[in-house]
Amino acid sequence: MNLLNENETAAYLDCGIWGTKAIKEAKIYGNVEVIGSSKDKNYTYVPKALIIPPSAKYFHYTTNNTVEGTQMHSIPETSVPLVADMSSDILSQVMDFNRFSLIYAGAQKNIGAAGVNMVIVKKDILGKVDRKLPSMMDYRNHIEAGSLLNTPPVFAVYVCMLTLRWLKEQGGIPAIEKINDRKTALLYDTLDGLPLFRPTVAKEDRSKMNIVFVIDNPELEKQFLAACKEHGMVGIKGYRTMGGFRASLYNALPIESVMALTDLMKDFANKKG
Amino acid sequence: MNLLNENETAAYLDCGIWGTKAIKEAKIYGNVEVIGSSKDKNYTYVPKALIIPPSAKYFHYTTNNTVEGTQMHSIPETSVPLVADMSSDILSQVMDFNRFSLIYAGAQKNIGAAGVNMVIVKKDILGKVDRKLPSMMDYRNHIEAGSLLNTPPVFAVYVCMLTLRWLKEQGGIPAIEKINDRKTALLYDTLDGLPLFRPTVAKEDRSKMNIVFVIDNPELEKQFLAACKEHGMVGIKGYRTMGGFRASLYNALPIESVMALTDLMKDFANKKG
Repeated sequence: MNLLNENETAAYLDCGIWGTKAIKEAKIYGNVEVIGSSKDKNYTYVPKALIIPPSAKYFHYTTNNTVEGTQMHSIPETSVPLVADMSSDILSQVMDFNRFSLIYAGAQKNIGAAGVNMVIVKKDILGKVDRKLPSMMDYRNHIEAGSLLNTPPVFAVYVCMLTLRWLKEQGGIPAIEKINDRKTALLYDTLDGLPLFRPTVAKEDRSKMNIVFVIDNPELEKQFLAACKEHGMVGIKGYRTMGGFRASLYNALPIESVMALTDLMKDFANKKG
Repeated sequence: MNLLNENETAAYLDCGIWGTKAIKEAKIYGNVEVIGSSKDKNYTYVPKALIIPPSAKYFHYTTNNTVEGTQMHSIPETSVPLVADMSSDILSQVMDFNRFSLIYAGAQKNIGAAGVNMVIVKKDILGKVDRKLPSMMDYRNHIEAGSLLNTPPVFAVYVCMLTLRWLKEQGGIPAIEKINDRKTALLYDTLDGLPLFRPTVAKEDRSKMNIVFVIDNPELEKQFLAACKEHGMVGIKGYRTMGGFRASLYNALPIESVMALTDLMKDFANKKG
């Protein structure tokens, strides 16, 4: 709505449920060229060797696919403005944020509680569309008002402040990245070492935030889910469209939780595998 | 966006800052006929004898003007669908909500904390516009998803629940209306009895939620504001565009607070009046 005129074309990557939704919405306002898709394999990988047309108004992608458990591990090289949905991996790892023209993210993964969203935008990509924008949807108005265009969701913003202070105390993004890497390695190594469990995603595209895996036996899947619940581990069931399991290792999750899960997996595999 | 086609006309009432903003936004999507305005007297009254054209797609008004301190004390008689911004007086008094086709309100006055908004809409007025709507802006999608189209602002919703339970315990809207009427009568009677203070609004249009008044002496205004602060009364300064004072008597404010304010006013008037 803010970036694309009706007769213009933006390039999009189709790598999962959120990318698909972004494409659907963008089509309301202009043309969309999908320059890569992993739909053919149920979004279990990230397309490589992307060719982004230099004529595209911008290139949009989702840095981490929450539901499918894939992640882009490098920023695409392009002369076109980069627009990214970073909802589920922002603040989890060091990134060259300057390379993006627009970054957006819901707070509810690594920033704070649900109820507030973040947009970082370079001013030079705004003000280039012909349509009239509703005041609340026009990023320029939010910039002009210092992000206080409307009554802010005070409590949600307050929780963000507390979370960001906590992150700073941990040593900031570089420090949390190290902890995240340890968490991720522990869980994927355990998965790779236990034939009972099967990670569904191409190895090089594995997400560091959302680890998706299955047991190729519906009865054992049920039993493992019950075992998790028994040990106080909830929210590990895969997204309703995916099945299987999804362990989300957001910043707030301590490595002790991952150790508890991997211990349970080993124990379960010993008994049932 | 949901209700008005480009070639259609909606009727609007221009009674204050929020009505003016609503008119500005509606003009992006269709024609607006302003059928009444109190701009000529700085929004200190509510226009009467409204003529709403039967051809209007809907009639939009603000039930209570938070900033200016006026309130509509009856629901307009019309065959046209009624659309109302009830942000600042919803749940404060018994109303025939069934007469409205669409009601919207921010939570942060009488419903809960900032960060969530409420829309009540009759399905029969939706789906009649030609334009493509972004999914998040299309009320039909929210209805279909049972108001869970996106991750909800959980804490803000939780606070609404607590507030609504509290309201129920008080005896619901009829009970809170009686308390509100006592609060309002006490403050207006005090204002009317003290020549030092001057309510700025036409008597028959006075708001029961936001009581706006001035002292016709800038020096004494400063002194009274300081006296309020000294007694722990904050937020009584008038809206930045209005000056003077504004006492907001939302549901959560106990009558004891109004008594403290009126006592201070009497005391101040005795000394300075």
